[in-house]
This record gives sequence, structure tokens and C-alpha cells, in this order.
Amino acid sequence: MPQNVKGINHIGIAVKNIEEAKKLYCEVLGFEFVEEKRLEDRKVKTVFLNSGNTTIELLEGIGEDSPVSKFIAKKGEGIHHICFVVNNIREALKYYEEAGIPSVSKEPAPGAEGKLVSFLHPKATMGVLLEVMED
Amino acid sequence: MPQNVKGINHIGIAVKNIEEAKKLYCEVLGFEFVEEKRLEDRKVKTVFLNSGNTTIELLEGIGEDSPVSKFIAKKGEGIHHICFVVNNIREALKYYEEAGIPSVSKEPAPGAEGKLVSFLHPKATMGVLLEVMED
Repeated sequence: MPQNVKGINHIGIAVKNIEEAKKLYCEVLGFEFVEEKRLEDRKVKTVFLNSGNTTIELLEGIGEDSPVSKFIAKKGEGIHHICFVVNNIREALKYYEEAGIPSVSKEPAPGAEGKLVSFLHPKATMGVLLEVMED
Repeated sequence: MPQNVKGINHIGIAVKNIEEAKKLYCEVLGFEFVEEKRLEDRKVKTVFLNSGNTTIELLEGIGEDSPVSKFIAKKGEGIHHICFVVNNIREALKYYEEAGIPSVSKEPAPGAEGKLVSFLHPKATMGVLLEVMED
């Protein structure tokens, strides 16, 4: 049996210029700025926005070999991933793998919020990059 | 001043085969099936899934000239749009337009849920197709 999804933690959006994107989402569209983080090991700058029921995570790559920069080079700016929450990530990933949906990395690792996350392979999920988070 | 965003109503995902996508999201990933609708005038089949805090809307085009089919032909399957909620859609659209973000259509119209919606032009929102809903 699959685990029940406990909610969408955030929606990730890849942008070229995170300061411009922050202005657009906060000053024009009315999202609420929460915080920004620079994750050198993941080669990404992030801005978190509150929408009321879920979070928007703006992502700008640090350097051309950042996964976010590569995504933009290939597909253009736009929605990058959806992160959903489960109770037990290792059990969930084992179940997905047995159902033909492997993870991109072998082991879950702490994400920007410090919680264990893993990405499912988008070839197995109809083109959608899905991040799984344990909470 | 922009209106405050009142939440993400749903995340739209474009798929080639909505029955297969429904199986993936419900039987494997653990999202909860809510309902399905066929909107002939919009040339789209939709499946609504509950995640706990926001809705996932799976979209399959009806015919090759469906906007969803055209999206898939151009970009492949994947995340199609994000729908956020405001109090007053006409006031919001007027404000966005004055800030340089026009809508795709001139007037908001009832969406799948019967509430007034409009799409913002993705060229003005860094590649993200944003749907605005009044609630």
C-alpha cells in the first residue's frame, strides 16, 4: 500500500534572476516573503514565499553546472518541481521503487529545511519532477 | 497595492493519458481521488486529486487543437500551471496589467469549479503559467 500524501510542502520555480522574481511575486502578485537561503553545496539560491496554504520556492542556480541552471538551459524558466510530504520517506521510496519509480539518488538527504528529501525520476512520473519529504 | 494571495487552489499537470496518470498518483503515490470532469468547451479532461492542503488537477487534451495537447507537443508532459486565489479578480487583473502583466484573455470566465478565473501571460511571469481565481 502507498503511504497517504500529507500535503504539498512547496512548489519550486526555476528563475534566472531571483531578485527580479522575488519582486514580481511579492510586490506585484502579493505573495508574502518568508526567507532566503544560499545553499552552496546544492549550487542554488532560494527564496521562500508564503501563499496561505503552501510555499513557493524560487530557485536560481549558482554557476552553469548547477542543476537549476541546467534545467533552465534545457527547458527555460518555469515550474521546476512539486514537493509532497509523507510520514516515512524510506518506506515510501522503497514502495515507489518496487512500483517502478526509482529515486534520482540512492539515499534521502536533508533538504533546505533540514528534513529528509529525495527526488523521484521524472521519466517514471510523466515528466514531473517530484520531491518527497519526510515530516 | 497588490491583493494578498489567499492560497494555491491547485497545481495543473498536463498528461497524455489521464487514466494512467490517475493510477500513478492515486495507487502508487497515495494522492486521494476527488472527481473527474470532461470540459468539451475547453477541450480538456480533468481529474482532481486531494493532497491534504491543495489540489492536483491532471489535464488531458481532447483533440490535437486542445491547448493542453499543444502544450505537450511543444514542451512534453509535465507541470502546466499554478492557480492562486484572490478576493477580487477584476481588481487584481487590473493591477497586474498596470504592472506590465497582461492576462491571456480579456475577461475572466468561469473555470472547472464555476469560479471566475483568468490566466496571466507566461512571457510576463518568467515562464510560469499562472491562473488567478476569485474566491
